[in-house]
Amino acid sequence: MTQNNLLNDIQNATPLPLTQGVKIAYQGIRGANSFEAAGKLFPNGELVARHTFEDVFKAVESGECDYGVLPVENSTAGSVSAVYDLILRYRFYIVKALPMAIDYCLAGLRQSELSDIENVISHPQALSQCEEYINKMGFEQIPCPNTAVAARDTARKKCLNIAAICSYKAAEEYELKVLDEHLQDNPYNATRFIVISKRLYIDENANKVSLCFSLPHVTGALFKMLKRFDALGLNLTKIESRPIAGKDFEYLFYLDFSGNVRSDGVTELLCRLDEELPEFSFLGNYAEDI
Amino acid sequence: MTQNNLLNDIQNATPLPLTQGVKIAYQGIRGANSFEAAGKLFPNGELVARHTFEDVFKAVESGECDYGVLPVENSTAGSVSAVYDLILRYRFYIVKALPMAIDYCLAGLRQSELSDIENVISHPQALSQCEEYINKMGFEQIPCPNTAVAARDTARKKCLNIAAICSYKAAEEYELKVLDEHLQDNPYNATRFIVISKRLYIDENANKVSLCFSLPHVTGALFKMLKRFDALGLNLTKIESRPIAGKDFEYLFYLDFSGNVRSDGVTELLCRLDEELPEFSFLGNYAEDI
Repeated sequence: MTQNNLLNDIQNATPLPLTQGVKIAYQGIRGANSFEAAGKLFPNGELVARHTFEDVFKAVESGECDYGVLPVENSTAGSVSAVYDLILRYRFYIVKALPMAIDYCLAGLRQSELSDIENVISHPQALSQCEEYINKMGFEQIPCPNTAVAARDTARKKCLNIAAICSYKAAEEYELKVLDEHLQDNPYNATRFIVISKRLYIDENANKVSLCFSLPHVTGALFKMLKRFDALGLNLTKIESRPIAGKDFEYLFYLDFSGNVRSDGVTELLCRLDEELPEFSFLGNYAEDI
Repeated sequence: MTQNNLLNDIQNATPLPLTQGVKIAYQGIRGANSFEAAGKLFPNGELVARHTFEDVFKAVESGECDYGVLPVENSTAGSVSAVYDLILRYRFYIVKALPMAIDYCLAGLRQSELSDIENVISHPQALSQCEEYINKMGFEQIPCPNTAVAARDTARKKCLNIAAICSYKAAEEYELKVLDEHLQDNPYNATRFIVISKRLYIDENANKVSLCFSLPHVTGALFKMLKRFDALGLNLTKIESRPIAGKDFEYLFYLDFSGNVRSDGVTELLCRLDEELPEFSFLGNYAEDI
C-alpha cells in the first residue's frame, strides 16, 4: 500500500452503514461464543454459521455475507493468531470490536442431577480453563471441537452421566439444564471479538486503531517506533511480537492504540510508517467499549 | 521481591548443575511434543509424564522432579499464557529454553494405505493447523486431548480408515506407518519450550532475560519503560501485553531481551524496576539458541 493509497482510503472511509438486514458470518454452530458475540454486535442481523475461520473470510469475500465476526484475543489463552494472519492475507479491515466475558456452566439433560455426572465434554481449551473444578469433582474429560458442539452432543447422547462445559447461551440453545455455574478457574475470562469487512469503514465514535508491521531485529527498533507514537500522546492498548516465518531476524508486531486516525498528526504518522516500513498494514479504526 | 533480595538472588545464582541422572517432568504422554523437547534438553535425564501443566509444577515443587519442561510460545498459535501464570504463582524460574520446529505427519496402521484413510484424529489446534490439507483430502475430523494420544488411540483402535495427525516421534513411539508428510498449512511452525526450576540458576552462556511486570494504563508508560532498556542498548526479542484480571486500567507485560543480567547496568536496572513497579518478576536469565 503506498502513502497515497492509505491517505485516500482513510479520507474516503465512511461510517459503518446501518446494519438492518445485514448478513453476518460467524465460525461454529448456534450457541457458540462467536454466535453470541455476533448477536450482540448485530441485533438485527441474519447470522450465518460457517465451519472454519477461513470460511468466514470466504463468505465475506464472495459477498454472500456483509461482515464476519471472529475472536482475536482471549484474556487467558492469548491471541488467536490465525485470525490476524487471515486479515492480512485477505486484506480485510476491522470495523468494530466487542470484549465479551466468557462464563462456563455445567449443562446436562433435564432429568440429570449434578450427582449423576461422571463425564464432561468440551473444547480442550475450555476443559483446561476449568481444570481445578473438573479435578475437584473427579470428572472424566471428553474433548470435542467446540463448546456449542459439546452442548449439542450432550443433548443428542441422552446419557444421564454426561454434561457439557459450555456457555449459558449454548445450554439454552440445546435445552440443557444448568447443573453448576461459573466453572472457570480464573473468574476473569474475556474474549475480544472483532467484525471484519472487505471495505474500510471508520465510525464517528471510532476509538481504537489496529496496526500490523514488521521491524528489523536491531537494537532499539521497537523503541524508536514507539517514540513516534508517544510524541503524539497516543496510548497503546495492545502490543505483541511474533517471529516471522522463515525470517530469523525480523519480527511482526501487532499494535493497538486508543484514538481516532483523523485526529492531529495520526494520519500523517501512519502514512509515513507505510512509506518507510517494508511491511505495514493499517487494519482499521473502529469503536470498542474500553 | 525487594531490591536486596533480587540483587542477592542474581549475585548468588550458580550455573545450571550437570544434568546427569536428573528427573524431568513433562506434560502429556510419551511421544508428545513436550516429551520430545525434554529429551533434547536433557539427553541423559529420566523423563516423567504428568497429566497437566500444573502437575508438572507440583512434581518440581515437591522435589520429586528436578526440572519441568513446558511449551510457552507457538509461532502460529501465540503464547501459552497458562504456563506464565503458573510460573508467577509458583515463583519458579526459567533456566533454559529451546525453540523446536513442529512437523506433522499422517500416521496410520502398518496395513493402511493413504487411500484407506477417511478419519483423522488429533488435538483441535493441530487439526486447525492442517486444515487446508484435511479439506483437500476430504477427511472427517475427530478431536482428542493431544497429538500423542491421537497416535496411541490410532494404534489401539486398529481401524484401517483412521489416521493420527502427530509428530514423527509419536508415530514411531506407537509403531504407526507414516502415510503422508509435512501436513501443516504454514511450513514454519515452531514451539518454544522452557525448563522451569524452583531455584534460580544462571548459566555462563545465558543470553536471554525474561521479565513480567504490570504498568498503569497511562499514556506513554510502556514507552518510558522501553526507553530505559534502550539506554543500555538491550534488544527486545519478545513483548506481549495482557489485560489484568479485574483491573481495567492495568496491563501485564511479558518481555524478553537478549543479554546477560550481569552485564553493565542490567542488574541495576532490574533492581530499580523491582523497587518502582507494583508488580515485577525476574523470571530468569538462560541460554537459548536464537
